[in-house]
Amino acid sequence: MSVLTVGTVAFDDIETPFGRVEKVIGGACTYISWAASYFVNDIRLTSIIGSDFPKEEIIALEKRGVKMDGLKIIEDGLTFFWAGKYHDNMNKRDTLVTDLNVLDDFDPELPDSYKDSKYIMLGNLTPDIQIRVIEQLTNPKLIVLDTMNFWMDIAMDRLKLAISQIDVLTINDEEARQLSGEYSLVKASEKIIAMGPKYLIIKKGEHGALLMSKDKMFYVPALPLSEVKDPTGAGDSFAGGLIGYLAKTDDISFENIKRAVVYGSTMASFCVEEFSLGKLKKLNPQIIEDRIKRFVEITSFSL
Amino acid sequence: MSVLTVGTVAFDDIETPFGRVEKVIGGACTYISWAASYFVNDIRLTSIIGSDFPKEEIIALEKRGVKMDGLKIIEDGLTFFWAGKYHDNMNKRDTLVTDLNVLDDFDPELPDSYKDSKYIMLGNLTPDIQIRVIEQLTNPKLIVLDTMNFWMDIAMDRLKLAISQIDVLTINDEEARQLSGEYSLVKASEKIIAMGPKYLIIKKGEHGALLMSKDKMFYVPALPLSEVKDPTGAGDSFAGGLIGYLAKTDDISFENIKRAVVYGSTMASFCVEEFSLGKLKKLNPQIIEDRIKRFVEITSFSL
Repeated sequence: MSVLTVGTVAFDDIETPFGRVEKVIGGACTYISWAASYFVNDIRLTSIIGSDFPKEEIIALEKRGVKMDGLKIIEDGLTFFWAGKYHDNMNKRDTLVTDLNVLDDFDPELPDSYKDSKYIMLGNLTPDIQIRVIEQLTNPKLIVLDTMNFWMDIAMDRLKLAISQIDVLTINDEEARQLSGEYSLVKASEKIIAMGPKYLIIKKGEHGALLMSKDKMFYVPALPLSEVKDPTGAGDSFAGGLIGYLAKTDDISFENIKRAVVYGSTMASFCVEEFSLGKLKKLNPQIIEDRIKRFVEITSFSL
Repeated sequence: MSVLTVGTVAFDDIETPFGRVEKVIGGACTYISWAASYFVNDIRLTSIIGSDFPKEEIIALEKRGVKMDGLKIIEDGLTFFWAGKYHDNMNKRDTLVTDLNVLDDFDPELPDSYKDSKYIMLGNLTPDIQIRVIEQLTNPKLIVLDTMNFWMDIAMDRLKLAISQIDVLTINDEEARQLSGEYSLVKASEKIIAMGPKYLIIKKGEHGALLMSKDKMFYVPALPLSEVKDPTGAGDSFAGGLIGYLAKTDDISFENIKRAVVYGSTMASFCVEEFSLGKLKKLNPQIIEDRIKRFVEITSFSL
């Protein structure tokens, strides 16, 4: 089935305890599309870049089945730029620079060829842009929305309007607490699901991910890794694996969303092992299945 | 099989966002013994208290199969007292008061009837006391040791000597990093297992627990709960469930230690739902098995 991805395509400067890279490829839509490309080959990218963005990166994505009809290229414009530095424990980071550049004018008008997309992954952006995309969809089967505390701080009403129109919300534990006003993730989940989405996925970084529905929950750990070099894009790689697996299997039952969460966690576990898209670009189905087996191993027990 | 528990028996003042209690019953050995008592009825408590400690609390434990030959009562002495206040997120706490009182003179000489104990749970205490207990054991089958960063700060050499003589070490993630000097829990685990223990259990509080051996790992989440009122004693309840289940089943294979970690997590999940021993005192096998099933539910998936 088709996947629509919406979000940033960016340049990043990243510093972690393991190194520093400059002007590498980043952006939510980039990570989502790369991760999803291991599952489906009808991915419809929706974003905006400047003419400074390297053509070969576009071509590499196109070779993986990612369509570019929805990618707006602004002549003489500059691509969105983000610079961040991770703390020693890599669970926290400081944003050093955010240059919106061409993103400032992003008004995603979907090409006609995108409007019938079935599986929708709305990367973190202003709630207004997310709503604008939702309004143009003719027959979506599942809409997943990612967001962050920043929009809760400055645009809570618009965010809640967006959330009321989706099926799955992905946020981290602190954001779930902020959005709901509840400390307990069980209570937070109840309140958030009452806002509209059928499912809530709480991303807990190195601690894993929690999937909640009205009456069920599922927890998958993050795979403990020998080396974590760069957490940038982990959440988006998770989202890409999730939406890609769901589109491939075309089954939105709780049982299948559980599997999708495991596939999402798997893609995130690859993402963090190298800077930028380093690892995500060189996977194959066998490598992914081998890692899925490791998730099975570390979570299985019999009574 | 027999369980030997060693650790503090205490009075606690506890403040959490959900309330404040004064001079309630606490102490590692108390929580360990209560939790273990749901699995075995030959528990050998080793601790020290003052004559101010309520007799009925001793009697309640005796009724659960906890032997008191190793409990030293100091006439006119005062029982160890701890006061703590939890931060809003309950993952952090400040210690407000630590009155060692009779604990200052604790030199655990095991009664002859204790020396052949099979399953040993050494609660958090000075490494010297833990070593002194190990030296008196005649034929232990499994020694589990709990400790904390405080001893890493002031008595690292003695702690490493203790760790070299045990089978299972239980610490939290920050302590695993401090003890090993490695940030990655996979690398930290390799270094710690090289110090002596066959197994390392990394307790991650609300994020669950990680069991590591030389070549295997297992992760169990903490059960997401509607209400967490008081985290005090959660780690010790985990330890009590762990050692109790292992003594009951008398099987120290990796597969069985996995199950013991799930039982430990289950006992911890009860502990935090009420202040002090409130919930731990009123369990029964059916309540425990029902909760174990919830752990199975939230962690199971099929590919």
